[in-house]
Amino acid sequence: MTERKRKIINDPVYGFITIDHPLIFNLISHPYYQRLRRIHQMALAHLVYPGAMHTRFHHSMGAYHLMCWALSELQGKGVHITREEELAAKMAILLHDIGHGPYSHALETDIIEGVSHEAIGSWLMEDLNQQLKGALGLTLDIINDRYHKKFLHQLVSSQLDVDRMDYLNRDSFFTGVSEGVIGYDRIIKMLTVHNGELMVEEKGIYSIEKFIVARRLMYWQVYLHKNGAERRKYAGEDLMPG
Amino acid sequence: MTERKRKIINDPVYGFITIDHPLIFNLISHPYYQRLRRIHQMALAHLVYPGAMHTRFHHSMGAYHLMCWALSELQGKGVHITREEELAAKMAILLHDIGHGPYSHALETDIIEGVSHEAIGSWLMEDLNQQLKGALGLTLDIINDRYHKKFLHQLVSSQLDVDRMDYLNRDSFFTGVSEGVIGYDRIIKMLTVHNGELMVEEKGIYSIEKFIVARRLMYWQVYLHKNGAERRKYAGEDLMPG
Amino acid sequence: MTERKRKIINDPVYGFITIDHPLIFNLISHPYYQRLRRIHQMALAHLVYPGAMHTRFHHSMGAYHLMCWALSELQGKGVHITREEELAAKMAILLHDIGHGPYSHALETDIIEGVSHEAIGSWLMEDLNQQLKGALGLTLDIINDRYHKKFLHQLVSSQLDVDRMDYLNRDSFFTGVSEGVIGYDRIIKMLTVHNGELMVEEKGIYSIEKFIVARRLMYWQVYLHKNGAERRKYAGEDLMPG
Amino acid sequence: MTERKRKIINDPVYGFITIDHPLIFNLISHPYYQRLRRIHQMALAHLVYPGAMHTRFHHSMGAYHLMCWALSELQGKGVHITREEELAAKMAILLHDIGHGPYSHALETDIIEGVSHEAIGSWLMEDLNQQLKGALGLTLDIINDRYHKKFLHQLVSSQLDVDRMDYLNRDSFFTGVSEGVIGYDRIIKMLTVHNGELMVEEKGIYSIEKFIVARRLMYWQVYLHKNGAERRKYAGEDLMPG
Repeated sequence: MTERKRKIINDPVYGFITIDHPLIFNLISHPYYQRLRRIHQMALAHLVYPGAMHTRFHHSMGAYHLMCWALSELQGKGVHITREEELAAKMAILLHDIGHGPYSHALETDIIEGVSHEAIGSWLMEDLNQQLKGALGLTLDIINDRYHKKFLHQLVSSQLDVDRMDYLNRDSFFTGVSEGVIGYDRIIKMLTVHNGELMVEEKGIYSIEKFIVARRLMYWQVYLHKNGAERRKYAGEDLMPG
Repeated sequence: MTERKRKIINDPVYGFITIDHPLIFNLISHPYYQRLRRIHQMALAHLVYPGAMHTRFHHSMGAYHLMCWALSELQGKGVHITREEELAAKMAILLHDIGHGPYSHALETDIIEGVSHEAIGSWLMEDLNQQLKGALGLTLDIINDRYHKKFLHQLVSSQLDVDRMDYLNRDSFFTGVSEGVIGYDRIIKMLTVHNGELMVEEKGIYSIEKFIVARRLMYWQVYLHKNGAERRKYAGEDLMPG
Repeated sequence: MTERKRKIINDPVYGFITIDHPLIFNLISHPYYQRLRRIHQMALAHLVYPGAMHTRFHHSMGAYHLMCWALSELQGKGVHITREEELAAKMAILLHDIGHGPYSHALETDIIEGVSHEAIGSWLMEDLNQQLKGALGLTLDIINDRYHKKFLHQLVSSQLDVDRMDYLNRDSFFTGVSEGVIGYDRIIKMLTVHNGELMVEEKGIYSIEKFIVARRLMYWQVYLHKNGAERRKYAGEDLMPG
Repeated sequence: MTERKRKIINDPVYGFITIDHPLIFNLISHPYYQRLRRIHQMALAHLVYPGAMHTRFHHSMGAYHLMCWALSELQGKGVHITREEELAAKMAILLHDIGHGPYSHALETDIIEGVSHEAIGSWLMEDLNQQLKGALGLTLDIINDRYHKKFLHQLVSSQLDVDRMDYLNRDSFFTGVSEGVIGYDRIIKMLTVHNGELMVEEKGIYSIEKFIVARRLMYWQVYLHKNGAERRKYAGEDLMPG
């Protein structure tokens, strides 16, 4: 790749995110991905938590950063991952939210019926793959869990994927709600692969327990705050945080 | 005030911001102030620093938080401040950016000519004062430097005001550029009043030096990044951070 | 008090700790309290967590800082606390660990038998009270739960006291084990008093849940690490962290 | 190496430090290195800054962590570094403070005259090299600037070495004095090699400026605080921080 396309991006959560492959660069520059700059990760939650203005663009890059790190840790432990698989897994996590529209899940359930963000994402990815002349083949296999190294799919989507690690951490950071802080660095250090599946080393058990508790607390305190009685507030009646 | 109107707001920069007076509550709830939720503090800088999505709404509340703290520190050192002056100074800082439009200073110089955000702010504040039946009288005196206790104006607007302390700190936090981090807590602890003017205790000198250096570095690295060649990038040619 | 005795102390956990009363100053300057500079808060845990070198001196000052903050929050909610009670409660928390010897609880159970750190603390406090000509009368009443405003004792010693809040937070900070991070600021904001007893407002429930989980995780991951098989390691056999 | 010897160590400054080579493990386990657990990095500064209890053991491991990171960044930019050079540079930084005695530089100038910590360090390293059957040959060449790839020595010892990056950052972290915080991650990302010498990319200039200012401020506010009038305080006359 040309020097011009090596980029480091400031991220207040992790410090710096590095982009060092032209395909990754092209993907992020594509209008489909740039569109995510205008989608808030937490929909209208910023009305209650004023800091929660962060976007799906930023979240996807954060998840990509954790993916880079996780792949490098696994390689350091002797797990065999080819350069092609590495690149495909990184693109898979970058694309995992590509189908999201504004207002997040609310859009799907209340505004448009019968079309999920997964379906939209699937169409966009197929189209991107054609534009990129099939460069996303392995990426799509990993996303759709058709690839024999299951752990690559599990890093993108499972109970302990880098998507969840990033959003818990990032939502916690931008809302200022410390209940969601997880020991993501320790979890990543504890990841391993056994029989092709993603595992956690035994001594990582407390970090995992904390991860699960943090997730539940964030649902109770933040995510579900958006529903029911609270959602009416967002409609304009009461815009004050509380 | 009614219990319903006591609010604490999560702020990732300072932890919590407390609102405990009905006038403050009403001011923040007013559409003029709520409008600031849609004005990015750093205009288009989020195209380069993806985390910089924070708003003037949030910044003004942060500056208000520092004002509360500064007033309390000064009172702890024996500086006489009445409850009316305290309230007026807090409202003054909340209102200091009320006239800002989208795209920040760019709007004034490139789009609308001859109307500054200070002028717009002034009109809005006069109007608010009428709506609130003159409750902003002392607030306007402080903002316009007509009040005899000059340090109250200086806390709102001077080389070392809580506005700058918050924006350096907040912009640093949300961009992830550590160059702007200042020891705001130490500076506030070092504030004092002499002959009615705001001063800094002698042993705060290094914190002040750091504050000035941080400000200059943020201009070079972040704020001026938005001009000239860079501004063309924002027009769509090159949306990648760098 | 003389100007000379107003002190602010840098604390990496909370920023600054302020001492603004001559009795507090004298207590901290006393050799009994200065002795705590040489007692590690976490005994030999620094052999496993190299950052855990912090002292009981520092922990007690941190707990004192949280006490100052909690009392101020309660007063802000209309709880009546006299200046004498305030001072006594602050001295009570400063003194709560005064009887600790080196190696923490291990000393009591394995080296000296039949003398608890509470007993030693009690003797030292009685002696201090004599040296200070009875200035610790109310302090001792609060510590020994003989004072009618029970919440003052509960702030010093209960399931949710400022002692635990500080040590969970501080041990987490210095070990780098994020599992113990608690939302101490939110908990303090949620404290209230009902029928003379310390309570938590309903919407603080998730912060409390997290506090309890964090405490359990710290026990499993850090505190109990010091026992059994691990303790043998400290004896010299294996000094590497793990 | 055996699985048993792969270690990750919690560091509150950087998160985790990884040891993944048996020679590194053996070096850290050696009594010469373990001795540094009992040497405070900042001598008696903890009397003024109670958090500054951190050791040269911890500092050296932090500098080692930055070295690992810097070497990996340089390799990512195409700088050729063999595995042997990598290992030697890591051992060099681990050993850079091995000759320090208690009370830091004060010991050398005031207590023992005519023997520098560099001289003691040199003797200990020669002895270690014999015990390890010459495994430190290249390490000693790098430390003594006898190796043709000068940038390896410069990473260990120069105006912009990982030693200074770690101590500014670590001293800042443990004292709680924010004036010393540096953008170490950005500096490391900006390192490059030109004609065999360590360089910084042009756009890293503000991070370097901040590094230099931070260093000066730490000297004025913290390090030189230990001399002159202040040092007398440490003798017992006035143990209060200020």
